[in-house]
Order: sequence, then C-alpha cells, then structure tokens
Amino acid sequence: MKKEVCAITFARAILAEFLATMIFVFFGLGSALKWPSALPSVLQISMAFGLAIGTLVQAFGHVSGAHINPAVSIALFVGNQISFLRTVFYVVAQLVGAIAGAGILYGVTPVNARGNLAANGLNNNTSTGQAVVVEIILTFQLAMCIFASTDSRRRDNVGSPALSIGLSVTLGHLVGIYFTGCSMNPARSFGPAVIMNRFTAAHWVFWVGPICGGILAALLYYYLLFPNSMNMSERVAIVKGTYESEEEWEEKEERKKSMEMTSP
Amino acid sequence: MKKEVCAITFARAILAEFLATMIFVFFGLGSALKWPSALPSVLQISMAFGLAIGTLVQAFGHVSGAHINPAVSIALFVGNQISFLRTVFYVVAQLVGAIAGAGILYGVTPVNARGNLAANGLNNNTSTGQAVVVEIILTFQLAMCIFASTDSRRRDNVGSPALSIGLSVTLGHLVGIYFTGCSMNPARSFGPAVIMNRFTAAHWVFWVGPICGGILAALLYYYLLFPNSMNMSERVAIVKGTYESEEEWEEKEERKKSMEMTSP
Amino acid sequence: MKKEVCAITFARAILAEFLATMIFVFFGLGSALKWPSALPSVLQISMAFGLAIGTLVQAFGHVSGAHINPAVSIALFVGNQISFLRTVFYVVAQLVGAIAGAGILYGVTPVNARGNLAANGLNNNTSTGQAVVVEIILTFQLAMCIFASTDSRRRDNVGSPALSIGLSVTLGHLVGIYFTGCSMNPARSFGPAVIMNRFTAAHWVFWVGPICGGILAALLYYYLLFPNSMNMSERVAIVKGTYESEEEWEEKEERKKSMEMTSP
Amino acid sequence: MKKEVCAITFARAILAEFLATMIFVFFGLGSALKWPSALPSVLQISMAFGLAIGTLVQAFGHVSGAHINPAVSIALFVGNQISFLRTVFYVVAQLVGAIAGAGILYGVTPVNARGNLAANGLNNNTSTGQAVVVEIILTFQLAMCIFASTDSRRRDNVGSPALSIGLSVTLGHLVGIYFTGCSMNPARSFGPAVIMNRFTAAHWVFWVGPICGGILAALLYYYLLFPNSMNMSERVAIVKGTYESEEEWEEKEERKKSMEMTSP
Repeated sequence: MKKEVCAITFARAILAEFLATMIFVFFGLGSALKWPSALPSVLQISMAFGLAIGTLVQAFGHVSGAHINPAVSIALFVGNQISFLRTVFYVVAQLVGAIAGAGILYGVTPVNARGNLAANGLNNNTSTGQAVVVEIILTFQLAMCIFASTDSRRRDNVGSPALSIGLSVTLGHLVGIYFTGCSMNPARSFGPAVIMNRFTAAHWVFWVGPICGGILAALLYYYLLFPNSMNMSERVAIVKGTYESEEEWEEKEERKKSMEMTSP
Repeated sequence: MKKEVCAITFARAILAEFLATMIFVFFGLGSALKWPSALPSVLQISMAFGLAIGTLVQAFGHVSGAHINPAVSIALFVGNQISFLRTVFYVVAQLVGAIAGAGILYGVTPVNARGNLAANGLNNNTSTGQAVVVEIILTFQLAMCIFASTDSRRRDNVGSPALSIGLSVTLGHLVGIYFTGCSMNPARSFGPAVIMNRFTAAHWVFWVGPICGGILAALLYYYLLFPNSMNMSERVAIVKGTYESEEEWEEKEERKKSMEMTSP
Repeated sequence: MKKEVCAITFARAILAEFLATMIFVFFGLGSALKWPSALPSVLQISMAFGLAIGTLVQAFGHVSGAHINPAVSIALFVGNQISFLRTVFYVVAQLVGAIAGAGILYGVTPVNARGNLAANGLNNNTSTGQAVVVEIILTFQLAMCIFASTDSRRRDNVGSPALSIGLSVTLGHLVGIYFTGCSMNPARSFGPAVIMNRFTAAHWVFWVGPICGGILAALLYYYLLFPNSMNMSERVAIVKGTYESEEEWEEKEERKKSMEMTSP
Repeated sequence: MKKEVCAITFARAILAEFLATMIFVFFGLGSALKWPSALPSVLQISMAFGLAIGTLVQAFGHVSGAHINPAVSIALFVGNQISFLRTVFYVVAQLVGAIAGAGILYGVTPVNARGNLAANGLNNNTSTGQAVVVEIILTFQLAMCIFASTDSRRRDNVGSPALSIGLSVTLGHLVGIYFTGCSMNPARSFGPAVIMNRFTAAHWVFWVGPICGGILAALLYYYLLFPNSMNMSERVAIVKGTYESEEEWEEKEERKKSMEMTSP
C-alpha cells in the first residue's frame, strides 16, 4: 500500500514536470515571436521567461519541486538531492513537455509571426567558446538561487522562493539574450529545434553550457559552501530513491507534535 | 445570531468582489488607452493588469478571496472549494463591477484617448480557434497559480500569494496581448463591451476560453495533482455552503491552543 | 521614565517620516527629470515611484509605520488607527521632508534637466473634475492595499507588505501619469511646487483627491469590510494617544510565553 | 576543534563574497554593454543590477550575509554588526571578485560591444560635488533597506529581504544612471576601471560617495532610529570577532527547545 502511494506521488510529479515545462516553453517562446506590428523588447522577453518560471514554481513546486529544466534536475542529482530514477524520468518529461509546448505555440501562431520560434543561436559575433562560458555563468547563478531558495535546512527568512527563482531567470535573459538568445535550459532549446527541425552546429552549446553550470553550482553549494552532514549509506540511499528525507521526517514529527498539543 | 454574522460576512465578500473588479477593470483598461502623446507599450500594459490583480488580492483576499474573475470563481466551484450560491453571487458582482469600472473610466477619459476602451478582439490575423486555445492556456496557468498560492493544505514556503498571482496575470498579458488583447477574464471583456455597446462576433471566445481554462486547471489540480481527501457528504456540504472548512476549524483550534498556553 | 521612552520613540517616528518622505520625493521626482539625452518612459517613472515607496516601507516601516504621505496618515486617523497628535506631527514632517527632498534634487540636477521638477498638473486635456475623480481612485487602491498589508488582525499569508505597497504605487502611476502626472500624495505635489514656486490653479486637486480617496478607503475598510470590535472609550483612547494597542499587548504576551517555555 | 569550524565557516563566507561580487559585476556590467543592434534602456539596466543583487542575496545571504559591496561591509562595521577582521577580508574579496567579474565579461564580449565596460563617470554635465551628493543618497537608501531587511531584532513581517534589497538597487539606478552611471558600490566601479585600465579624475567619487552614504545610514539606523542595547564590552567583542550574537544564541535555544518538545 505504502509503495503504491509513493508510485502515485511519483507519477504526479512526472506529470507536473511535463505540464510545467510545456507551459514554460509556450510562454517563453511565445513572448519572443516576430510580431510584424512591434518586436518585443529584451526586457519584455526577459520578464516573460522569468515570470513563467516564477508562476510555475509557485504552481507546481509542492508537487514535483518544479525543476522545469534538465540542467537543474541533473545538478540536484549531482548535489545528492534526488534519486537517479527521478532524474531520468524528470529529464524525459521535461524534454517531451518542451516539444509539446513548442508544438502548441507553432499551431496557434499566425505564419508571419513564427520566425524561428525563438530558437537559441549565437548572436552578435559571439564565438562558440564565449557562448559556452556565458551559458555556464547564466545557469550557475540560477542553480545557486534555486538551491538556496529551496534549502529546507535554512532557518532565516527565505522570502518568496518562486519569485526569487523567476527573477533569477529574468536576470539571465537580460544579459544572455544578446549572446545566445539565452538558453540556461536544454529543454527550452530542444523544443523549438525539434518543432522547426532546425539543429544548428552550436546546438550542443545549449546542453553542455547549462548542464556544466548547474553541476558546478551543485558541487560548490552542496559540498563546499553549505555541505550536508550525511554518511555514505544515506547518500547511496538518496541515489537509489530509498531515503526518507529529513524534511519528510520533520513534517511527520510536526504533525505528531501538533496532535499532542491539541489532545487533552 | 450565528447565521446573521455569516450573512454579513457573505455580503461583505460580495461587496469586495464588486469593488475589486471595478478597480481592476478601471486600472487595466486605463493603462491601455490610446493617448495621442505616446501609446503605452505591451510591457507597460502587462505590468498594469498584473499589478492591479496583485494589489487587489492583497487588499481584498482576506475579505472575499479576491477572485475578481468569473472564470476563477467557476473553477473554484468545479474544484469543490466554494458553494454554488457564492459562485453565482460572485459572478454577478464581478460582472456589475466590471461594467462600473469601465463606465467610470469612460467618464474620466478625454474623448481623443478613449479608443475602444481596450476591448478584447482578435489581433494579428489570429483565428477564432487559435484565440480559444490561447485563452485556455493563459487562464490555465493563472488558475493553477491561484489554486497553489491559496491552498491552505500546503506546509512549504508559499512566499507572496498576492504578488505571485499578480505576476501570473502579467505573464499572460506578455503573450496574450498579441493574440487577443488578453482577456483571461470574462468580466474584463464584458465591461468595456457593455459600455462601448460593441459586442464583436468573437466575444464568446472571452467567455469560453477563460472558463474552460479555469475548469481544466481545477480538474487537474483538485482531482489529479493534489486531491482532497473528502467524502461525498463533505463535498455536497461545500456545494450547499453548509461545510465548515478545515481552515476555519484549525483557526479555532489555534485560538484555543494559544489561550491555553497563555492561561496559567 | 516610561513616558520618556515613549517620547523618544515618538521623536524617532517623526524623524523617520521626515527622512522617508525626503528620500521618496528625491527619487520619485529624480526619476522623471527632463534629461536631454533620453526622456524617461512612463513605465520607468512608475517603477521608480513604486520602488521608492517599497524600499522606504521596508526600511522605516518598523520605526514609524512609514506612511510617507499625508493622505495615508489622515486616512489612518479617520480609521481610528493613530492618535490626533501623531497625525499632525506626521503630516508636518512629511511636508517639510518633501520640500527638503525637492530642494536637494534641485541642487544636484544640471539646469537643463530640471524642467518643472516633475510637478503635478492636468495633462492631455483632463478636466479638473476628471482629475479629482482619478486621484480619488488612485489613492483609494493604495490606501486599501496599505490597510490590508499592515493589518495585525490578519492571520493569513500577507506576503511582502513593503513590495505590495510599493507596487500599488507603481500601479497608480501607470494610469495616473497620463491624467495628472499622478500625485496620490499631497506632499509629493507640495514639495516641487514650493521649490519651483509654482502653484497652478489645479494644485488643490492634489490635496483634495488623495485625502478624499484615503478617507473613503478608511471608512470602507475599518468600518464596513473589516470592522474593529472596539468600544467607544478604546476609540477615544486611540485618538488621544493613550491606548495600548492589541499588537503591543500580544508582543508582550509572546515574550512572556517564550520565556516560560525556555525556563525549566 | 570549535575554532577550526569557525575558520572553515569564515573561509566559506569570504569565498561567497568573492563569488557573489564576481557574478554581480558580470551581470551588472553585462547588462549595460554597447550592443550595436540595440542599446539597452535605463530601465533594463536598472532591473539587471537590481535582480543581480536580489538573486545573489537570496543565494549567498545565509553563507556570508551577501554584502557584495565594500560600502555595505564598512557600514555594518561602523554599525557595530561585524568584526574588523571580517570587514577587511570581505572588502578584499569583493574587490578581487569585481576584477574577476569584469575580466570574465571582457573575455566573453565581442570587441565591438565592449565600450568602456560600463565604467562609472560623470554624465550629463553633473559636477563632482553633485555626483558625491547623489552617490551618498543612492547608497543611503540601499544601506537603510539592507539594515532593516536583515535586522534579526524585528518581529514584524519583513517580507522578502532579497527582493527588497535587490529592488532598492534598481531604484538607485533608475535615478543614478543619469548622473554618474550609478555606482553605489566601490567594487562595481573598481572592477571595470582595473580591467580597462581607465581611472578617471572622478574615480574617487565612487569610493567616497558610497562609503559616506553607508556610514551615514549606519549611524542613523544603529545609533539613533533603532539602537542596540549593548554594553561597551559586548561592542568591543563584536569588533574583535569574539562575540556570540544573540541570533546564534537564539538558534541554539530553539534547537534545544524543539528537542525538548520532541523528546518524551
């Protein structure tokens, strides 16, 4: 019975990642279409990508964690926060969701506004090497912000996790759009590339950059700046998905406590 | 006596929905007028609609829930969160409020800036079918964000509900304005249509799209992703308006608890 | 001794209102100067006014309540929230602060960028009557947002009071700038008028509009939508400034409680 | 053993200040490059600087306090909040980080977009004296916002410290860019000056202005508006770095308390 409950919770999380990435890609790309009447500004596009993540983290965070980004899922795996299985399923759901989101947008957009569906590419004479470095830094700050905003070990005032994470995405776009169109997220680059069937020679940049940036942040945050005090068997249990996190434990304790306090 | 108190609370909620929708429509449409000196930008209009909802949820949320949108009230009814009677009264108050807000705006706006009072319509060669799909998706993300932001069952850090919900409205406008002027809210479309006496052939889109998007989100959120554990009689009691919610119960318990702790 | 403590606290609050209004006026007007290189946009000015209030409420809210606005202080007096003496001293401090802020800005701004120091006036063929109605509505939504954001009786998630109040000011400007330059605050209009010695025939609008809007909101919020359960002698005590608020009482109780829990 | 733990924590904080300032300078300057396709707007640059601080305070606040600014560290020292040693190490880490951030940006930016790497300078006929006053006021409001947002003595709703502090930086830029390019932070001015080897005659303004503004705010906040009730030996202990803050003490107590409550 207990296993079944877990399986349902797990399936819900996968569905949430699929839906959230679909909506994210729809709104992100949708804010950057080539409308003949007036091209959207860099600030406007940056706000849309950021508010999309901010809204979806708010809406799905308690269901799946709302990674909405393979680079984030992989980084959390490297940081020993989620199981291997969860990582694989999330990444697949995100990629399928991104294709779906780009596909729906393609369907509803008048032909003359589609452009290349806001696919990522090297802009303004940016070299491939420069692009990789930029994507690493863009994703690094986002991943650090996510780790810190959702760290259940913190006891200080974390404010609004969803808004902080969303505005970190906006920040990335305010700088990144000029260099690469700003990926920070392999799914966001993969979706329109599949739908437009347009994989440029630099497409790998939008996988390698974000994933390296995310991993770098995970190594720094979870092993150097704010390390976990877990032994090896606990760590292995997390990778295998058999670990009961402190958070879950705490929640149970809290419920127990409040029951004790209420009872006469 | 108890019933009377409830009736007063209920009347206050109706008044709050009327006022909030009136102000929302005034500021939303008011930010999108055709000022000859300088047309407002898409980002500017999107911010105004979003900050209006953000401000009004902050100001009226604890009085009525601050739906300010028939699609949201209907979705919450479908999600088994509010009674049938409340849904009907709220929707009527919202529609009347929207007409009032549009009317006041009409009265204070110099003739040469009125335009069509920011009424919704199909822009940029968008077809009716495309418009319905877009309005469904726009409202879907807003409704998901509202459900999650106001879900009293959550125990994690929900941040700022009012700002998250407001910025979700901004997100919708950053994409939706290009397609349909962005409704997401039948009252927002109905108000200026009544005042300008201008019901286009596509007016139904701004009822069907938002309401379908809201209902879809309610089905997903309240029955699939984050279901309630209530039995049928409790569910019927909610529809009838005779249910005492867990939240109210908890509040009472908390008061009791704190009294016990204070007492010697 | 106790009275002395109160007097110091009261003096600090007056100083805070003076400083906050000075900085508010400096940044607000400073964002709307006539720079020859590039005129600031409506969105930019609206953000500056709003973020100024948001920052100052965050910085001074716990010292004085951070009204920064005579219309807000008067409204809180009408809502029976502060004493008569506090209202008078706050309003004077705000007006003097506004003159100081406008004066400093005048001093640091190159002559060719000063313009009329962003003084308020009727724009775009707005009539006096329309201007009053607009200012009433602008201030009404701000005052409602302030009352709800700082209401110590609320038990739900109020999010970020400072940001919500700040963004409510931004909202007002996004619509109000086109009509009247957006006052919402007699001190904000009074400061530059004194420094530029330029009182237009419509200057009274920026006193009557905001103050009426604030009072209207106070009547609605504190007497109709969310009334206090206080008897007449308590109400009179608040006006006189001899009332010990529930909040202060609660704080003391909490301290007592936590001491009891810590003690063995 | 205990001292070692402290040393590691201290080293982590230094590393965090280095990293945070590096990323801040990269994103801040990076948002203000001279892209030939389209120059970024003042609002866009202001948002980038502010969201960078907002994101980094969220990400590093619990590791080092996330000052990211020598003027803030010095002000906190003057306000008797951090030790002398911490102040010195932080300032050095911030300056080195700023050079690193400007250097990386230089490396990844195409030659024709570099401009002067967004170095600060006197714009629009601003005189040196005016520039100093403006920088003092810009930094004053930021420092006040930081002190209030991170004050552990506050018991009211502080909202989102990271977002409030970030948006205070945005506010500064919305006004300051026109006068001085907006420094508010000696490290932000020092980094690009070193990399471009371009120290103008007014470079000192970006050290004296922000540091004076920060110190002024610290004197007002920590000694006048919201003074600490500490005796001289406690104050000296803080300067020496041997003081165990109330906050740390509270945290320990809380842990003890919760353990007692959980234990049977």
